[in-house]
Amino acid sequence: MDPKDSKRSAPCSRVDVHNPHLDTLKDDILYHFSLGTKTHDLPAMFGDVKFVCCGGSPWRMKAFTEYIAAELAMEDPKSEYPNICAGTDRYAMYKVGPVLSVSHGMGIPSIAIMLHELIKLLHHAGCTNVTIIRIGTSGGIGLEPGSVVVTKQSVDATFLPKFEQVILGKTVVRNTDLDETLAEELLECSNELSQFHTVVGNTMCTLDFYEGQARLDGAFCSYTEKDKQDYLNKAREAGVYNIEMESSAFAAMCKLSGLRAAVVCVTLLDRLKGDQLSSSHDVLHNYQQRPQILVGYYIKKQLNPKAKCC
Amino acid sequence: MDPKDSKRSAPCSRVDVHNPHLDTLKDDILYHFSLGTKTHDLPAMFGDVKFVCCGGSPWRMKAFTEYIAAELAMEDPKSEYPNICAGTDRYAMYKVGPVLSVSHGMGIPSIAIMLHELIKLLHHAGCTNVTIIRIGTSGGIGLEPGSVVVTKQSVDATFLPKFEQVILGKTVVRNTDLDETLAEELLECSNELSQFHTVVGNTMCTLDFYEGQARLDGAFCSYTEKDKQDYLNKAREAGVYNIEMESSAFAAMCKLSGLRAAVVCVTLLDRLKGDQLSSSHDVLHNYQQRPQILVGYYIKKQLNPKAKCC
Repeated sequence: MDPKDSKRSAPCSRVDVHNPHLDTLKDDILYHFSLGTKTHDLPAMFGDVKFVCCGGSPWRMKAFTEYIAAELAMEDPKSEYPNICAGTDRYAMYKVGPVLSVSHGMGIPSIAIMLHELIKLLHHAGCTNVTIIRIGTSGGIGLEPGSVVVTKQSVDATFLPKFEQVILGKTVVRNTDLDETLAEELLECSNELSQFHTVVGNTMCTLDFYEGQARLDGAFCSYTEKDKQDYLNKAREAGVYNIEMESSAFAAMCKLSGLRAAVVCVTLLDRLKGDQLSSSHDVLHNYQQRPQILVGYYIKKQLNPKAKCC
Repeated sequence: MDPKDSKRSAPCSRVDVHNPHLDTLKDDILYHFSLGTKTHDLPAMFGDVKFVCCGGSPWRMKAFTEYIAAELAMEDPKSEYPNICAGTDRYAMYKVGPVLSVSHGMGIPSIAIMLHELIKLLHHAGCTNVTIIRIGTSGGIGLEPGSVVVTKQSVDATFLPKFEQVILGKTVVRNTDLDETLAEELLECSNELSQFHTVVGNTMCTLDFYEGQARLDGAFCSYTEKDKQDYLNKAREAGVYNIEMESSAFAAMCKLSGLRAAVVCVTLLDRLKGDQLSSSHDVLHNYQQRPQILVGYYIKKQLNPKAKCC
């Protein structure tokens, strides 16, 4: 592509860190990735990254890498995709061409550690115009299991679109908006694919999987089936289509760093009808592939010769 | 041991669940362990468990299993200790005799999912008189790196000993006391071992590793070195010796279920002197072994013929 065209169509957007102290570090150790600016040539390793996909499970992120490599016809049949973070078991990371795939574990604290280090990694590597998509699983509210939800806003347990970050013991409220255009583009991709039902809606992000999501099957439960139904119905009335455990921190941190971000989660069950994940392994496995099929299709479409890129 | 003696010396204490709905489940699927009451004979697999050790890293919990097997002279040189949760990559679990070793990932939400399912597992298995110890890593405040902290109380980012659990959108405050006698016994063990410095003190539990712990090296930082020092010094004045990310939920949930619980964390650095984990791999590895050495010694002492058991 002619650089002038590139400049006209999509001005280069770098990944922002907001931390003057970083400039004073001789070496920035990304401890939970087992990478660092002194030990690794981050621009050479990651400078071409345009898409980052993340999800809770390391196995799923490896499978995504194999899937996207085949989709982009970049697979190397001789090569096992190496785990770039092989020096640690905190996160797993794989790369194929411009697509980076990273696991983030379960819950806001776990994804927040990953994102702090990922944002620094992309910044140190000089990456530009990066799109980041979380592909995950969730509980649906009033949706057929297997439906995919692209998040409009991430809301908290009181259905408000905010993320509370505690800094020096004080609570700072951050915005959880995601990229509206990207959400629309993903919905359009799902329509073109026509393989499964996809909606754009709000996602409730909780700090707990059992009591925090009104489940009746945790070790502790002090409420009734009716209390649960009332709560989930109120959530549904507030526009919540699904519940998971990472989207609010993800939305807030990506927005702060100027990353174009989306959350694409499949619903493994309808929480109005039950709590336990009792579908067969094969059915759950099929559902879990849907976000990766959708995001794979989106990336492939973006990387075709007509797509705008920097 | 004569059962009468056993009854006299230590009345059997079962693991409590507080959830009337569990009785109505035909099958209880412990989804994140890939185990269930219908698919697995939990009493046969786990009925003899007396000690549970948990920590963030699956590698470390496997290493702990190998270590404790050698300490208890129960190692089987022909056997690789199989991961009991091999059907999932969410957690790893190993067992040697009466000692169960489980990983819990990073952060409160991740350990909470593990504990809900672990408490149900121990309950379904009919386990009695179980002691559970989290062995982890942490940042110290005013301690020589490599010091071990046995937690007295887990406190939040405002130094208060409480854990806030959101249930149906409302905040419920839970107590974060740990077992005082167990903490004293662990300190005594450390004195007997004389291999490293151990203190009993408060542990601050945060939802974030960077901004949440006043680090200057995250992707975002809006405060100065002086702000950081002031905050950490206030924490120290409130009795905080170290900072980690799981102890409050761990303390609250273990207390609710009647588990005798302790938190034993090594400090990898002194946060008053820096933020980055820049010690060599060998030094950090040595530090990380200290909680397992201490807890291994404690378990061995408990299991000797004179120890009281149920």
